[in-house]
Amino acid sequence: MTHGLTHANPSKLRDLCPALQNKIYFNYGGQGPLPTPSLDAIIASWKRIQELGPFTTDIWPYISAEVNKTRGRLARLCNVPAHRLALSENVTTGCVLPLWGLPLEVGDHILISDCEHPGVVAACHELARRRQLQVNTLPVKQLRLGRDEHAQTDHDVLAAIEQQLTTRTRLVVLSHLLWNTGQQMPIAAVAAQLRQHAAQPYLLVDAAQSVGQIPVAEAAQAADIYAFTGHKWACGPEGLGGVAISERMLTEAHPTVIGWRSLQDETRAVADDPDPFHHDSRRFEVATSCVPLMAGLRRSLDLLEQEGSDGDRLERIRTLSEHLWRDLQSMHGVSPLLKGPPPAGLVSFQMHSEAEQSIPSELVKTLGAEQIWIRDLADPICLRACTHVCTSHNDLEQLTQGIRRISTQNQGG
Amino acid sequence: MTHGLTHANPSKLRDLCPALQNKIYFNYGGQGPLPTPSLDAIIASWKRIQELGPFTTDIWPYISAEVNKTRGRLARLCNVPAHRLALSENVTTGCVLPLWGLPLEVGDHILISDCEHPGVVAACHELARRRQLQVNTLPVKQLRLGRDEHAQTDHDVLAAIEQQLTTRTRLVVLSHLLWNTGQQMPIAAVAAQLRQHAAQPYLLVDAAQSVGQIPVAEAAQAADIYAFTGHKWACGPEGLGGVAISERMLTEAHPTVIGWRSLQDETRAVADDPDPFHHDSRRFEVATSCVPLMAGLRRSLDLLEQEGSDGDRLERIRTLSEHLWRDLQSMHGVSPLLKGPPPAGLVSFQMHSEAEQSIPSELVKTLGAEQIWIRDLADPICLRACTHVCTSHNDLEQLTQGIRRISTQNQGG
Repeated sequence: MTHGLTHANPSKLRDLCPALQNKIYFNYGGQGPLPTPSLDAIIASWKRIQELGPFTTDIWPYISAEVNKTRGRLARLCNVPAHRLALSENVTTGCVLPLWGLPLEVGDHILISDCEHPGVVAACHELARRRQLQVNTLPVKQLRLGRDEHAQTDHDVLAAIEQQLTTRTRLVVLSHLLWNTGQQMPIAAVAAQLRQHAAQPYLLVDAAQSVGQIPVAEAAQAADIYAFTGHKWACGPEGLGGVAISERMLTEAHPTVIGWRSLQDETRAVADDPDPFHHDSRRFEVATSCVPLMAGLRRSLDLLEQEGSDGDRLERIRTLSEHLWRDLQSMHGVSPLLKGPPPAGLVSFQMHSEAEQSIPSELVKTLGAEQIWIRDLADPICLRACTHVCTSHNDLEQLTQGIRRISTQNQGG
Repeated sequence: MTHGLTHANPSKLRDLCPALQNKIYFNYGGQGPLPTPSLDAIIASWKRIQELGPFTTDIWPYISAEVNKTRGRLARLCNVPAHRLALSENVTTGCVLPLWGLPLEVGDHILISDCEHPGVVAACHELARRRQLQVNTLPVKQLRLGRDEHAQTDHDVLAAIEQQLTTRTRLVVLSHLLWNTGQQMPIAAVAAQLRQHAAQPYLLVDAAQSVGQIPVAEAAQAADIYAFTGHKWACGPEGLGGVAISERMLTEAHPTVIGWRSLQDETRAVADDPDPFHHDSRRFEVATSCVPLMAGLRRSLDLLEQEGSDGDRLERIRTLSEHLWRDLQSMHGVSPLLKGPPPAGLVSFQMHSEAEQSIPSELVKTLGAEQIWIRDLADPICLRACTHVCTSHNDLEQLTQGIRRISTQNQGG
């Protein structure tokens, strides 16, 4: 049973998402559902491009407006000026393109948290191999306090960083919301801490789980690279994201994957041009991408806004995740990873049993057979359910009943 | 007047493209029109993803099938095994991701043709700056013979390469079809030539203008990096392309922009893993991209095939471009760049007049006001009209009449 959950504010967004009509969905952290109006906006944009273009003098004002509106919208979300916001295909591109342009020297150190996504970790290790850097690990996986004790978590994160920083640390890599434990990192405080450090390390933040879920302006402004996607919590189409880049990145980092969008003059190649690239975020953009996606992402952000302010939405997400957390906490043989209600909507937990069906991947399948969808994670081995503004009371009931059933079977026989 | 053009084979593809219904279109080399069935396939894919997922155990077989079908289709087009074909967002990504993974040493030389796209040139220059390489130029811009004398052109290209190769040349960058002059490069012969060279230079081929227009299998098999997009001559959606990669690239080049798709095990990051990446083309793929585009590109390729075999389509394109070339050739004050009929569908030309309206960008606007769309290029300064299988007799008539009108005004007063 989920206790005291208000029915006062049913989600309009929910009704607009076909993906949510035939299943009980908790994988917003993997991919969010695409609302029908967003798909309609994408289709309309494609038709408009065909009507005006696709490659005519008439099309450029439309494309520019699409790019500028989207860049502006994502920049406002991050509360950074538009010239600091680059569009990207996905979180990885947003992280790695600026990352590989950093002015690092042989022997410099990178400090990476032990909760980063494997893709980002592998990119850092390959960068380290190529540039002969040392990779150090920042332990945050064991920080398991709930949101009520976030001050202690913040303190522990800053202390761990203080302990791991060396005189050669030039880059710190830390997610805003940890994708596995669901813990929130104090990005602005970390940025302030790094500014006090003699080596002035850059701060790369994987914001895959934060944009669309929690207010991000403070963190996005403070980070050097704040990379996100539109297709998870923002419920936009797959294939479009953004990255907020600090002023010093714009002057100190070189573009990596260069294409016509990176160039000040895209019409001709000038040999030995000492200054070929845009001085703003476009130096980290590449070439032709799927413009119609932009209208879809903006529409999804509109629909999210209609669900309430950033703060209101987080409040709702937290109410839902707290209920789920409490239900899980109360079940025999089930342990949430966090020792208190989660800071946002990521609720990770473990089941204790030798029974085959409590192997996480098997449990995902068992619940999936009832069209209840959560996911399993490998490190730490656990299950993860995400609550979003479109999560319903019934969703939570179905999930907790499903888990309780399996848990009871495991215990009882 | 366009002479002797058969009306026997009207294009079905043409009727399926909304972009071709309200304009006279010659910018296939910039972006091709998207047929309605391809947009429908994209929409259907999006809906299917929402129905099955977007992130559930039920969705993965569908996503895998989409990726595998698309990879297989593009691999067959290039006549390479599927494990040598990576999907990419655009031509630039396809070129640059493998490019930056090449094992180059300080002091190595790169040889780039003087007809490469500015994005690729800038990427090579930035690579040279970072790795301290020397960039040399391969002159092919002045090769202006028509397709009837292609043997001479082929000979001249090979001779120019022979002359520019040094003992340190480790990379040659050459487009298959030059985007400005429309000339075709003998890629397979160049590859054979480079294999005889002691330094065994890699061959990077920008295939932006060739895939969907001319048979590419021989060149794609021979190159080390053969990068193309689906959104030009193949009439697919913007944001999806591919790159054929040689076996030696797969073993010798490192991935650059790394994401979960590059990794053998995407579920966890293993510190000091000596072998984290896929051994096939996926090492050059990154992370989440727009899966629904794949169904659209395949549909467009189906529709192209229905227009005739590769060879038949090229024959048709050539018939059209030859007619355009002859008409332009016959006009006072108009000079095609090539001295004979073009090898494919790119027809570049210059107008000789001091009149303001013969400034290329002005001429583009003047024709555009009549909904006749060609483009101007900066190097060499010229105009470019592309003929494709969906170009009609009437399109050619309208274009030549428009140019003749302007030309007459320029000459007459």
